[in-house]
Amino acid sequence: MRNFKILKSLTAAGVALLAFAPGIASAAVEPETAFILNSFSFIINGALVMWMAAGFAMLEAGLVRKKNTATICLKNIALYSVSGLTFYVVGYNLMYLDVTGFIGSFSPFWSADDSAALAGTFDEGSYSASSDWFFQMVFVATAASIVSGALAERIKLWPFLGFVFLLTAIVYPIQGSWVWGGGWLSEMGFSDYAGSTLVHSVGGWAALTGAIILGARKGKYTKDGRVAPIPGSNLPLATLGTFILWLGWFGFNGGSVLSMGTAEAVIEMANVFANTNMAAVGGVLAAMVMTQILYKKVDLTMALNGAIAGLVSITAEPADPTIGMAIMIGAVGGVLVVIAVPLLDKLKIDDVVGAISAHLVAGIWGTIAVVFSDADATLFVQATGIVSIGAFVVVTSTILWLALKYTVGIRVNEEDEVNGLDKAELGLEAYPEFGPSS
Amino acid sequence: MRNFKILKSLTAAGVALLAFAPGIASAAVEPETAFILNSFSFIINGALVMWMAAGFAMLEAGLVRKKNTATICLKNIALYSVSGLTFYVVGYNLMYLDVTGFIGSFSPFWSADDSAALAGTFDEGSYSASSDWFFQMVFVATAASIVSGALAERIKLWPFLGFVFLLTAIVYPIQGSWVWGGGWLSEMGFSDYAGSTLVHSVGGWAALTGAIILGARKGKYTKDGRVAPIPGSNLPLATLGTFILWLGWFGFNGGSVLSMGTAEAVIEMANVFANTNMAAVGGVLAAMVMTQILYKKVDLTMALNGAIAGLVSITAEPADPTIGMAIMIGAVGGVLVVIAVPLLDKLKIDDVVGAISAHLVAGIWGTIAVVFSDADATLFVQATGIVSIGAFVVVTSTILWLALKYTVGIRVNEEDEVNGLDKAELGLEAYPEFGPSS
Amino acid sequence: MRNFKILKSLTAAGVALLAFAPGIASAAVEPETAFILNSFSFIINGALVMWMAAGFAMLEAGLVRKKNTATICLKNIALYSVSGLTFYVVGYNLMYLDVTGFIGSFSPFWSADDSAALAGTFDEGSYSASSDWFFQMVFVATAASIVSGALAERIKLWPFLGFVFLLTAIVYPIQGSWVWGGGWLSEMGFSDYAGSTLVHSVGGWAALTGAIILGARKGKYTKDGRVAPIPGSNLPLATLGTFILWLGWFGFNGGSVLSMGTAEAVIEMANVFANTNMAAVGGVLAAMVMTQILYKKVDLTMALNGAIAGLVSITAEPADPTIGMAIMIGAVGGVLVVIAVPLLDKLKIDDVVGAISAHLVAGIWGTIAVVFSDADATLFVQATGIVSIGAFVVVTSTILWLALKYTVGIRVNEEDEVNGLDKAELGLEAYPEFGPSS
Repeated sequence: MRNFKILKSLTAAGVALLAFAPGIASAAVEPETAFILNSFSFIINGALVMWMAAGFAMLEAGLVRKKNTATICLKNIALYSVSGLTFYVVGYNLMYLDVTGFIGSFSPFWSADDSAALAGTFDEGSYSASSDWFFQMVFVATAASIVSGALAERIKLWPFLGFVFLLTAIVYPIQGSWVWGGGWLSEMGFSDYAGSTLVHSVGGWAALTGAIILGARKGKYTKDGRVAPIPGSNLPLATLGTFILWLGWFGFNGGSVLSMGTAEAVIEMANVFANTNMAAVGGVLAAMVMTQILYKKVDLTMALNGAIAGLVSITAEPADPTIGMAIMIGAVGGVLVVIAVPLLDKLKIDDVVGAISAHLVAGIWGTIAVVFSDADATLFVQATGIVSIGAFVVVTSTILWLALKYTVGIRVNEEDEVNGLDKAELGLEAYPEFGPSS
Repeated sequence: MRNFKILKSLTAAGVALLAFAPGIASAAVEPETAFILNSFSFIINGALVMWMAAGFAMLEAGLVRKKNTATICLKNIALYSVSGLTFYVVGYNLMYLDVTGFIGSFSPFWSADDSAALAGTFDEGSYSASSDWFFQMVFVATAASIVSGALAERIKLWPFLGFVFLLTAIVYPIQGSWVWGGGWLSEMGFSDYAGSTLVHSVGGWAALTGAIILGARKGKYTKDGRVAPIPGSNLPLATLGTFILWLGWFGFNGGSVLSMGTAEAVIEMANVFANTNMAAVGGVLAAMVMTQILYKKVDLTMALNGAIAGLVSITAEPADPTIGMAIMIGAVGGVLVVIAVPLLDKLKIDDVVGAISAHLVAGIWGTIAVVFSDADATLFVQATGIVSIGAFVVVTSTILWLALKYTVGIRVNEEDEVNGLDKAELGLEAYPEFGPSS
Repeated sequence: MRNFKILKSLTAAGVALLAFAPGIASAAVEPETAFILNSFSFIINGALVMWMAAGFAMLEAGLVRKKNTATICLKNIALYSVSGLTFYVVGYNLMYLDVTGFIGSFSPFWSADDSAALAGTFDEGSYSASSDWFFQMVFVATAASIVSGALAERIKLWPFLGFVFLLTAIVYPIQGSWVWGGGWLSEMGFSDYAGSTLVHSVGGWAALTGAIILGARKGKYTKDGRVAPIPGSNLPLATLGTFILWLGWFGFNGGSVLSMGTAEAVIEMANVFANTNMAAVGGVLAAMVMTQILYKKVDLTMALNGAIAGLVSITAEPADPTIGMAIMIGAVGGVLVVIAVPLLDKLKIDDVVGAISAHLVAGIWGTIAVVFSDADATLFVQATGIVSIGAFVVVTSTILWLALKYTVGIRVNEEDEVNGLDKAELGLEAYPEFGPSS
């Protein structure tokens, strides 16, 4: 600690010298430094978003039955991999390159170009090409992750991955180009900061059409109209998955500032971190209170879904609200999920993990809630975005699901469903020493 | 790689030009850059601290019995949420705003003010308001997390959360204001870098009073004076929880440098990372050797608690010790936890996860150990801090526990305890397909 | 958002002033800022590498049987601790201090020296001493982690830790000095960016010699030449472990840029993140396709090992390949692991988790693959590095294993192996309430 004083006096000397050149002293961040900070924000926040893949895997592994656990683990690591491949081959350019209103470029195989920066030219807000690509790639994987949970326990592995391939190669990038690619919805003023609609609702719509076309799990809805509860097999894993998603969401929303090279950007990023955190808090507490009131007991899985719904709700605008508003926005999300889960069951739409409620319903709410804190957002434009993207995804994913259904088939046979997908599709068990899978 | 040379020569040119203005070249980090780095340190390290909530959840889920696992998961996500809410509503201002020796402001609803930075004024060491708030918020959640593990398997959910509400709204912020808020202990020279006392002992004292008032789990202490071991149900989860805490602790101690905008700060932060890591190493090895000597076997849960005790021990001063000292400080913590756990059992104080031993005992040790590396710290002042904060928390939390006990009640009834809290409080099971819960 | 404009105009003013001193405006990052960024890269990426210890622990805990789960958890936290201690006591200096071709200094007890930086002198590319030490320490732990999985379920605890002690104190640092310490292989031009050979193959060779000397698990290879599958007990944990490793690998490879204080460095780091991610993607997809073709089913554990093999493969050169090349390099790694696992079984080398296939085989491949993207690398030099380091580690670790075998013994007795190491070595069970361990 002795050297502290030396440094201090040197600093003082430096400051004194700078007094003769105040304009330089108060200048903005040096351009190359800003470039570094912008790029680093993308990769470190992107790594947190990649971590969400583990969160979805654990959440879903905890909420399915033992006999389908290994399969859902495989689906999650596979869908992440498929998403990455397609986004490299076609997705990124379709979403971001030469977007002409409704679609980008079909030019395949994205490649990095950092020549300007390497030549010493740093435009305001610029960053390394790969850092941006990496950050965008982990987003498309998130959208795909939402689908796997809803359709668990009865969908075939390879057809599911086929859907993921087409969702991430075509459906996600095209609608993404409308907003983040600078297309027509962006020009109209539609605002979706980190993807309540573009990521979460898209995954939710694809899951909804899939759940309807695929049908419910055997035994979920009895002939006399009852809903048979099928409890998740490993709730600590589901809890872990939720905490992982919560942590990853700091990167998801925080990285969506898209820069960190100015004081304004880091102030915004800090607001995003705090609001993201507190929306999840609101979602948890609202879901707990709701289930206590409705069912006289607190439901752990609803509390977990409340956290996720809170996170989804704030994702469309995590920067502008005050912390109090963020808590409220998240809490409404938490309430909605408690209402939506039994409602879907009434409609006999079987969503194994509550993904449609947490991602689609809360995603719509979050996109609307932008109008409360962003004066430039209007209810009409926000609704236009929700409806147009929703319609596009419903139509395209319905076509894809039906095409898969009537060609390769999407559902395992009844015997395999009863015995579990792990035995049927993988030929192994997730917990071979923990007694028979029921 | 070709462009490398271009960049190099540009750099050389820049350096040559700068040679004419050496005062500027050797000036400290440009103020806005420092502001960005300071703020970013808070949010990225704060995210790691948030992750500790998952660590506590997994550690505790692994160390309770199957029948109480879902409940402890719920308590952990709920206590984090309650802590966040109260810290926003009242805690932060009570701890940091206009502290007058013994308490801050009761002004409710913290709000961010970044006007100076947004106007281009960057005081030395300044940072975004939300970044600091977020970092402080995750600390209060950590203190609350410590309580849940000790009192697991017999405390009622809502009364527990009621205690958390009052602990995080009043008890934690008031004692926190004495040191980190600049109050009387701070003026006296009490030194607690990242909270061996302010966070870990506070949680530990609240757990201790709770454990005494709540009483031991049924069957833990038999009438003939024996201690019945109640093994944890899922040790890999407990191991995972410990690793999560270890990772999160880099943020806990590292972010407590409170800045990253100078070379000195980042040197200090790196020392903190290295020392934090090595204190945990010392704690693990000491606990392993101790249990091998005492019991002729190595106890995994003791090794895990050794890691935590090592981390708690270094938390009061992770910057100044050499790595060798950090190992020793952590090792003593590891030894203490091996001694303290059976000692508490002798006193019939039932701490399910060893939280009192790892956080309170090691927290006291760590606060004392500051005198070995910080010449400005004295044993008298350190002891004054330990005792005064200890007395305050013991008195207030005793009052709170007793008030809760004689109003709403804090303990589940005997039948519910035997059947497990998951069925009684949540109406579900954590592992419904893994055989009956005993 | 109102203040945005104020900031903008201030920025514009600053830029205008700077126009009079363009040399200064376009100068490289201010030296102290670069020092901060370089140091921060080491500690944040190093923390991610520390997290890989949890990944190995979960992967291995998921792939052993119930009765050996607690022991493998203990081994993982213990080996990390032993590695840290030895690297402080002797390893770091042996690897990096005064390296004279084949070995560094035996001077014990590394200590930090930041006097230059604290005096305000920042050489190009400089960083805080502890940040570098911490980053190097977590690498040696990774090498040791590879060994524990291969030898699980039959090796004694303390002799295993004795091997780890000697591996991390002597074997790893000496060969490390040949390349990263600037020794003879480095001078020859051998290229191993983040340690396909120096870390992963080293761990793999030590595991291979250990597996041969230790012998297979009882019942693994039957007398009639069949290989009895011994399935892992908890595949979601193994999946989690793989995701943790994947995340940690961003730090492993990304931090190996060794700086972040220039645009070039952060561009390189972003390329490393993207390539690391996509090599894992390639490994997963290749292993899935391979197992589908060979076995008509997709094997989850092979997909997980495919991810790891992909990551190991890209580790020798994650910066230079295009994303397409990175996918291919990882995919070859994934193919190799699917071939190597049954091959080792044919040779009756019992590797519980597939560590030798994923780390050694893919490590060799990755080191060779450097020649495809780095024009300065030659097959001859790469092979020289692979062979010389391989020979050194095989010889030294064989000596160590044999010395341990014929003194303290390395294998538990048959009864303990049947009953499980948890009962024999720790006196407890990992899952005491989940039915008998078989």
